[in-house]
Amino acid sequence: MKKLINEPLHFVDETIEGILCAYGDRVRTLEENNRVLLSNAPVPEGKVGIVTGGGSGHLPVFLGYVGQGMLDGCAIGNVFASPSSETMLDMIRACDRGRGVLCLYGNYGGDNMNFDMACELAEFEDIATQTVRVSDDVASAPADKKDKRRGVAGMVYAFKVAGAAAEQGMDLDGVAAVAAEALDNISSMGVALSPCIVPEAGKPTFSISDDEIEIGMGIHGEPGIEVAKMMTADEVADAVMARLLEDLPLEEGDEVSVMVNGLGATPLEEQLIVYRRVHAILADRGVAVYMPHIGEFATSMEMAGLSVTLFKLNAKLKTLLRQPASTPFYTNANK
Amino acid sequence: MKKLINEPLHFVDETIEGILCAYGDRVRTLEENNRVLLSNAPVPEGKVGIVTGGGSGHLPVFLGYVGQGMLDGCAIGNVFASPSSETMLDMIRACDRGRGVLCLYGNYGGDNMNFDMACELAEFEDIATQTVRVSDDVASAPADKKDKRRGVAGMVYAFKVAGAAAEQGMDLDGVAAVAAEALDNISSMGVALSPCIVPEAGKPTFSISDDEIEIGMGIHGEPGIEVAKMMTADEVADAVMARLLEDLPLEEGDEVSVMVNGLGATPLEEQLIVYRRVHAILADRGVAVYMPHIGEFATSMEMAGLSVTLFKLNAKLKTLLRQPASTPFYTNANK
Repeated sequence: MKKLINEPLHFVDETIEGILCAYGDRVRTLEENNRVLLSNAPVPEGKVGIVTGGGSGHLPVFLGYVGQGMLDGCAIGNVFASPSSETMLDMIRACDRGRGVLCLYGNYGGDNMNFDMACELAEFEDIATQTVRVSDDVASAPADKKDKRRGVAGMVYAFKVAGAAAEQGMDLDGVAAVAAEALDNISSMGVALSPCIVPEAGKPTFSISDDEIEIGMGIHGEPGIEVAKMMTADEVADAVMARLLEDLPLEEGDEVSVMVNGLGATPLEEQLIVYRRVHAILADRGVAVYMPHIGEFATSMEMAGLSVTLFKLNAKLKTLLRQPASTPFYTNANK
Repeated sequence: MKKLINEPLHFVDETIEGILCAYGDRVRTLEENNRVLLSNAPVPEGKVGIVTGGGSGHLPVFLGYVGQGMLDGCAIGNVFASPSSETMLDMIRACDRGRGVLCLYGNYGGDNMNFDMACELAEFEDIATQTVRVSDDVASAPADKKDKRRGVAGMVYAFKVAGAAAEQGMDLDGVAAVAAEALDNISSMGVALSPCIVPEAGKPTFSISDDEIEIGMGIHGEPGIEVAKMMTADEVADAVMARLLEDLPLEEGDEVSVMVNGLGATPLEEQLIVYRRVHAILADRGVAVYMPHIGEFATSMEMAGLSVTLFKLNAKLKTLLRQPASTPFYTNANK
């Protein structure tokens, strides 16, 4: 295992230490629980809290989006493992300003169970919560079973849009509705070329031949739709876009934001080559792209591959997307 | 070769196409030469031009820093190969506003030769130029042969500081002096865990065993100081910092910006773990860190490893560093 780490057991805590060393002016952890990361950004009085949580190993997801205009807090689990419900409750408590907290997170078994429990416990403390689960990965279940789908990179758009809505003073139901509306218009799919290595396990999460690519693979190495012979960038873009456009039909005149998300080891050059083709496919349909996001937004450590996310915009969602935001790993300096 | 590309020969042109599809509102290429990327950002009248150039395969270096507050133009070479002097001249001509152009680039043979020739040709057209070469890699030559050193990630700080000076209306000599002063206070060193693959070659740039790490390796796979048995993150940070602090002595009360730069395949988590140790070493000496930069700034495609850059600040350099800048791959939203 070739990783720049110390004790595998300390991987997550040392990552958090690094975050605090680097960005301690912008974020902090709870004194009694270092697995709760909170924003130091000043917020409008009574702003609805927006929180997330999940396993480590996906930076900038999840904790990298804690900051102005996005998340108030993040509960941090071990690598690819849900944080505990106690940690989630600590976070919800810290992020409530009397107007309630939206729990906005990826649709995974452990996270669902623990967030549900934390929300129940929060209710006993008279903290109102709402839950919106991100399930944007079209490869993980068919459209008629959308509630079975996993949450992947599309969650970043949901954080952004819900964060902007909360900053504008919207109430809890309103913010939850905006997040749900955004997610109804977000579809993602990824491909993987190589696995990642969980530090404590010390071995690759899956194996794939030197001449193969896994279409539709999840960000923890969950099996995809098919293992195919290695394809060109254009063929990959075509395959992914065909599936995404089936799920999220777009018409001439529509406007989307596109995220091409590197999973960890894929060079920016390759992401741009794929983006170029995605852009051309959309242009052919008369669909315009607004604020493309290209880079690493939701990774699997050193996994090679990428995902493409389409976010169909309307006037409201577009305005929320372009609002300024500033976190250690996401800066939108739009005026 | 597992890469998300099409024809290897089209790698660079398709990357540029991707850049233009994604950021065509902010950058453009010269109509007669697509290997010259220019900024669309409005600039103060008569601003000194700042240009760079070099081989492809290092995104965001070089072209990712073309934009407001940094570079006016970039000449784009093939992978790991210098752009031609003709391309450089086209760029210099396009970036001159009558007050001259600073050529600020990494100290590599081909780039030196071609930039020298381009500057000579520019002189015939009455365009004043100045040259500042970046040679921040302490592993590539001893301190008494600093002019033999290669330029690596430290160039990003030089782009930032020179860009801010030019925006403030400083003249060509002044901007060149600021860039040189910054570089006198910048030292970098990297380690590599795995090689990258040049698309046209189709095979790794070098080989390294599964249990080894190359200390001081260059961003094209140039040999480093030693091949060592794999080390922990803290040991790597200690080794790199020992060498950097020999080169750039720091005293209690000094202030530095630190860049931990992923070379391509190294997870952000690992970069943060290394940053944590760098931060602790500096804190032990009473040295404060200002505006840490953690992420991928100067890569070698899918190479695993990272570099650490120290930039010793004074009041002037600090002010220039924190000025706002906005390019497709670098946003400094400081107010």
